[in-house]
Amino acid sequence: MLRINEDRFRTHFDALTRIGATDAGGLSRPTFSPSHLGARRCFRDLIEAAGLVCRIDGAGNHSAVLTCNNAEAPTLLLGSHLDSVPDGGRFDGTLGVAAALEVLLTIKDAAILLPIHLEVIDFTDEEGTYIGLLGSRALAGALQPQDLEHPQGKKDAFEAGLRRAGLTKAGILSAARQPETLAGYLELHIEQGRHLEASRIDIGVVTSIVGIAWYHVAFVGRADHAGTTPMEHRLDAAQGASAFTLAAHRVVTEHFPICVANIGEMTFVPGAFNIVPETVTAHLEIRAPESSEGERLEAAIHREAEKAAASFGLKVNLQRLEAIAPAPMDDRVQRALRDSAERLGLSHRSFPSGAGHDAQSLARVCPAGMLFVPSVGGFSHSSREYTKWEDCVHGANTLLHAALTLAT
Amino acid sequence: MLRINEDRFRTHFDALTRIGATDAGGLSRPTFSPSHLGARRCFRDLIEAAGLVCRIDGAGNHSAVLTCNNAEAPTLLLGSHLDSVPDGGRFDGTLGVAAALEVLLTIKDAAILLPIHLEVIDFTDEEGTYIGLLGSRALAGALQPQDLEHPQGKKDAFEAGLRRAGLTKAGILSAARQPETLAGYLELHIEQGRHLEASRIDIGVVTSIVGIAWYHVAFVGRADHAGTTPMEHRLDAAQGASAFTLAAHRVVTEHFPICVANIGEMTFVPGAFNIVPETVTAHLEIRAPESSEGERLEAAIHREAEKAAASFGLKVNLQRLEAIAPAPMDDRVQRALRDSAERLGLSHRSFPSGAGHDAQSLARVCPAGMLFVPSVGGFSHSSREYTKWEDCVHGANTLLHAALTLAT
Repeated sequence: MLRINEDRFRTHFDALTRIGATDAGGLSRPTFSPSHLGARRCFRDLIEAAGLVCRIDGAGNHSAVLTCNNAEAPTLLLGSHLDSVPDGGRFDGTLGVAAALEVLLTIKDAAILLPIHLEVIDFTDEEGTYIGLLGSRALAGALQPQDLEHPQGKKDAFEAGLRRAGLTKAGILSAARQPETLAGYLELHIEQGRHLEASRIDIGVVTSIVGIAWYHVAFVGRADHAGTTPMEHRLDAAQGASAFTLAAHRVVTEHFPICVANIGEMTFVPGAFNIVPETVTAHLEIRAPESSEGERLEAAIHREAEKAAASFGLKVNLQRLEAIAPAPMDDRVQRALRDSAERLGLSHRSFPSGAGHDAQSLARVCPAGMLFVPSVGGFSHSSREYTKWEDCVHGANTLLHAALTLAT
Repeated sequence: MLRINEDRFRTHFDALTRIGATDAGGLSRPTFSPSHLGARRCFRDLIEAAGLVCRIDGAGNHSAVLTCNNAEAPTLLLGSHLDSVPDGGRFDGTLGVAAALEVLLTIKDAAILLPIHLEVIDFTDEEGTYIGLLGSRALAGALQPQDLEHPQGKKDAFEAGLRRAGLTKAGILSAARQPETLAGYLELHIEQGRHLEASRIDIGVVTSIVGIAWYHVAFVGRADHAGTTPMEHRLDAAQGASAFTLAAHRVVTEHFPICVANIGEMTFVPGAFNIVPETVTAHLEIRAPESSEGERLEAAIHREAEKAAASFGLKVNLQRLEAIAPAPMDDRVQRALRDSAERLGLSHRSFPSGAGHDAQSLARVCPAGMLFVPSVGGFSHSSREYTKWEDCVHGANTLLHAALTLAT
């Protein structure tokens, strides 16, 4: 039975994770940062060293194609991403790119003639330094011009980043591919959770990728002198935002066992020691594997925000900034992944992904699927992110055989 | 009975509040900003137009002296400040400078021969754009070289501001005066609260200025992926900081009726929608009119921080950044202010100031006192700050007669 080349896989993974490595043992490669662009240069070098050509589309997605004899055939994509969150880990994204490249090289070396093209792809800005899933949404034709006008953080920084990467907004929109040219999409990723480790399972087969929605929940009171205004006369926006932060956590934990919520940032205006805060905005994210649960959770969170505001005489404004619908994975792809694991003698379990991935963009336009390998301790987006090398190899072999099944 | 010149007082107040005026009807004159330096230029022009000389000491304090015949005599200071918080009001500080100048000019015009010198003074950075009460602390000899090394905000901005104002750190430290040269200090200020307006009293006589202490209260949990980490496995620093924000407000309101507390800012690290916050730091200010109450409140707040952290499995670190002791006002000065109000037929009430003022620096080295005029609605540090003009005139006349009493 065909296996990937473990040594070459390791050499490529090590090369791709050396760039942007942090002292803490992680990686820091925000999109279009010098370290991110450096990792992409390394990926191009690996592709060229293997005798292939690196293609870069208008969205900056980097890929290498193993063409078949039929120019009209569709393409099976295997991919992930080389960008990371600031001070992230070495496995999130990069492992999937290295594994996809290894699968392609293994098939090339074995001189297997496939009836379709096989393409390894590194998507741009999966993590959302500027626009989450930018590259895969562009490829899936799911980006509108206005989507490029509201990047996370500063707009100037996004435009400067595009210039550094040699990209333009028009180019990004031109990266869309016709769905009939796509045979499917497969992605290997670390779990970023503890299910597999806790149950000692080798492979996770993803059933669905959670929907994510982002909100600004602004509590508005009145700015007052923090020395001379009696406590009972204050309209202190921090009180409402704090009560809401506790309530949102409680309502999700108690009533929405398959969902999660996070308040990862708050902004205070005017934001001084000696002024009662007039406006405090909680930056809220919620995730749900099914649309109906997401809607029910949004309504519950809205009620909690209004209750918290009313308790302190404040106004509240809940604004949904953006939402991505849950993405069910293709049944035939899930079956190919399960069969592949079984043929390799690996245990497997099926469950939804709590994290967003490029596969959710592709699921709109072609059969898409994902497999997970165990994360030690469940850590991710952190330098403590770690997956045992033998699990990485199991994942790459499972990816190899699922790709062969789907391609033939 | 001698009265100030209302028209001249109004003309000077209008001239001094025109610079840095905001569209909202307030003033924005952070220390060493172009508008602040412009207001000081206007003050110099008014002094020179009155035939006096403007003196600028090493700390940038601007003053004009009405000298007596005895060169060895001490000086009675009358003052306030021309700087403001960003987007502050027109009365905080500027009213006191205009009133002090008017008192000096009234005494000069009346050709009253005093046995001591009379000096109007505009202190540098009362509001603490960089270092709160900078000018008055320098004059009182209460600044150490290291106090200049930790300005609020960026150190570079402070040093650039000093250069714009033509000042040096060594110069600031050289502004200290010998206590025996100071006969006393008097300051007129708006109340910045509602006591006077609510009880329809004309004049507030300040008994003490509250002590203020500033803290960073840091709750430390663990950064985790906000999609894949189950709610019950999170060590979410935002939960502890939120519980603390509610508890601090509650404990002060319920158990410390003469104190106040404010959390005017929080910083989240790493501060992203999709990462459970590892560290959330609450920026806390507490104010107490007596040292013993301040100590008791700090201990109570510390207990609440530990309780909040423990509830969510977090660590907490409470760091006191700086503290200013409460400053009792001089009994003889308080009596002079009450007598002055009574002779003018004005009602008065004595109470502590919840806001910090330059008078607390002067109270360390000479008899110091303050009088308040009513603030409509109690608004301050806001464009809604407003005091009726007749109340400003009552305050200036009260200041005039208290100064004459203390000077003779």
